[in-house]
Amino acid sequence: MRRMTARPANAHQARLLRLLRDGGPNSRAQMGDQIDLSRSKLAVEVDRLLETGLVVADGLAASRGGRRSHNIRLAPGLRFLGVDIGATSVDVAVTNAELEVLGHLNHPMDVREGPVAVFERILEMAAKLRAAGLAEGFDGAGIGVPGPVRFPEGVPVAPPIMPGWDGFPVREALSQELGCPVMVDNDVNLMAMGEQHAGVARSVGDFLCVKIGTGIGCGIVVGGEVHRGVTGSAGDIGHIRVEADGRACACGNKGCLEAHFSGAALTQDALEAARSGRSPALAARLEAAGQLSAVDVAAAAAVGDAAALELIREGGNRVGQVIAGLVSFFNPALVVIGGGVTGLGHTLLASIRSQVYRQSLPLATGNLPIVLGELGPTAGVIGAARLISDHVFSPA
Amino acid sequence: MRRMTARPANAHQARLLRLLRDGGPNSRAQMGDQIDLSRSKLAVEVDRLLETGLVVADGLAASRGGRRSHNIRLAPGLRFLGVDIGATSVDVAVTNAELEVLGHLNHPMDVREGPVAVFERILEMAAKLRAAGLAEGFDGAGIGVPGPVRFPEGVPVAPPIMPGWDGFPVREALSQELGCPVMVDNDVNLMAMGEQHAGVARSVGDFLCVKIGTGIGCGIVVGGEVHRGVTGSAGDIGHIRVEADGRACACGNKGCLEAHFSGAALTQDALEAARSGRSPALAARLEAAGQLSAVDVAAAAAVGDAAALELIREGGNRVGQVIAGLVSFFNPALVVIGGGVTGLGHTLLASIRSQVYRQSLPLATGNLPIVLGELGPTAGVIGAARLISDHVFSPA
Repeated sequence: MRRMTARPANAHQARLLRLLRDGGPNSRAQMGDQIDLSRSKLAVEVDRLLETGLVVADGLAASRGGRRSHNIRLAPGLRFLGVDIGATSVDVAVTNAELEVLGHLNHPMDVREGPVAVFERILEMAAKLRAAGLAEGFDGAGIGVPGPVRFPEGVPVAPPIMPGWDGFPVREALSQELGCPVMVDNDVNLMAMGEQHAGVARSVGDFLCVKIGTGIGCGIVVGGEVHRGVTGSAGDIGHIRVEADGRACACGNKGCLEAHFSGAALTQDALEAARSGRSPALAARLEAAGQLSAVDVAAAAAVGDAAALELIREGGNRVGQVIAGLVSFFNPALVVIGGGVTGLGHTLLASIRSQVYRQSLPLATGNLPIVLGELGPTAGVIGAARLISDHVFSPA
Repeated sequence: MRRMTARPANAHQARLLRLLRDGGPNSRAQMGDQIDLSRSKLAVEVDRLLETGLVVADGLAASRGGRRSHNIRLAPGLRFLGVDIGATSVDVAVTNAELEVLGHLNHPMDVREGPVAVFERILEMAAKLRAAGLAEGFDGAGIGVPGPVRFPEGVPVAPPIMPGWDGFPVREALSQELGCPVMVDNDVNLMAMGEQHAGVARSVGDFLCVKIGTGIGCGIVVGGEVHRGVTGSAGDIGHIRVEADGRACACGNKGCLEAHFSGAALTQDALEAARSGRSPALAARLEAAGQLSAVDVAAAAAVGDAAALELIREGGNRVGQVIAGLVSFFNPALVVIGGGVTGLGHTLLASIRSQVYRQSLPLATGNLPIVLGELGPTAGVIGAARLISDHVFSPA
């Protein structure tokens, strides 16, 4: 089952592989223009890559005068597995070496069932994708988890919503099971990498990606690279205080952002609005389904329910307040909003924007787009594939 | 007056120069160990650097067996000018190529007098340092200003406390006057670089440096490099909101950190405490001097004045609250507190610490030192020299 995927021998080869991953098939001549290598040196490195089987020749390139050069592309049989473990579901996808999604499965699952149950499910899903003929084996797998990760070892650390995962050797265990290299990261970082590779942050080097789901987190990209912080907890903005004497939070403090706005807080607020009679639309949905979630708040807001709209606006104001501070601090080129709660759409975005544009200095917001993510649940799995491809496409 | 300082011809030479700057004189053999260059290639590059005059041979190195090698050091005649323009005073220093301060002058001056008056003063101070025999000329100058800077051009942009400086070509103008290369940056970034080069952040790659003076700003160092943000305003944390319906701020918003705690806000609060009779110690100092500043608050606190202590504690709580958010977001390895208000010392630090350790997640604060800067007003001028040396010691 273990595939012996070759690794690039040096930094030049690594750069060539990433260039082909991000830009698709290319001619030798154009690759030479893009990376600063002499023609002869480039030829040597490309020939060596051809020998490893990581790249293949792919027909003649368009003529630029003189002898026509061969197009080069990444081996069409390379396969990455992208896994995004959320609080309440698991996404598993297969991509090719250009990180195009060939197949994508989603399964509801509570992360609190613990690593053994979740891994079993992931392996099943991967097997199903393989059985569908999408992959013979995997050249690497990227895994996202909803909590902080000690990145070099691929181990979750004190993840608040993942009891049973603290210190579990996710990287090592899954690498054994899958028979390929594995890298593990926080799910929010992977969303940022996904939007950077194939979504709204394409070509942007410095941006923030705020994920509002069961919890709230922020992916930070600096100079094209994810900033993970000294212990891997960078971006953990859910426990920034938004209210001096605010609601009690699961972390033990009061007034944390997550305690006031996140999937969980919103569900609470929606239940209250339904039961108190303030929201006829939510009351009707509660009666029909026996429970409520962010989806119901979105639906109620869509039919003009005032209480639902107010919940979204208030939440947007609070997230916006925190983002305003981050924008002043970090001065990003772009802010991406993603995660389950983005079903709340324009109302949410509008109140986030008005807070940021009002509270941050004009110099930091003058050219600052604040936009919804483009890839939805695909961002995480593409980010996961990107993570492991960065590893596989670097010198061993 | 213009000195024709040579520049390194390639990245290897640049790295050798910075190694000698940061580590002092060194043998060829040891430099070879530290940068990944073959013995023969290293010999070639060192010989070329000797030809430029940027480095000189400096006696025999300690024996490591075999032929003894010559020590190499940066040319002893190289001189950098470090200038730190504050809101209320100007610091000018001369350093050698290892960024050791050879002479340092400080002059009270209001930055609002505008660039022409301030430049005149700087040139006078530089001339005085030259007349004292500390430099024949300058190989480069670094300039810090108390506001955001469009870094590539060296131009202040919309600096709130620097009317008359907006868009002024500081880099170009001073480069003309001084006859050497000039780089301009925000004063807080320079403080961070100074503490990194010679102070408490030595060898730390990811840290925050919070400067509390007339205003409040934060230098952000990521992977050893200053993060300036997409428009150069990163670190502008003085206008993060700390109070929902707080004090009116000069920026037009309410409840900004600076409106509640900074040199200016503290002076206001001290006056009020003196006049209202809450602080006998401050009242006595006001009567004696006719005015009050942070220094007086520190002195009153030192003799146990309850109102002064409370002002410091309250201010520390507010700064601490903002820093707690930044720590959760950025997960730094170290937080440095500097600037004029650090005269408030341990009381201030204690309340900052208690806020951060209470509000940020344990994972981010588990190994997080929060310390006072070590270099005081020298940090800025060393940072300025470091900035220009990075430029001079890079390929033209």
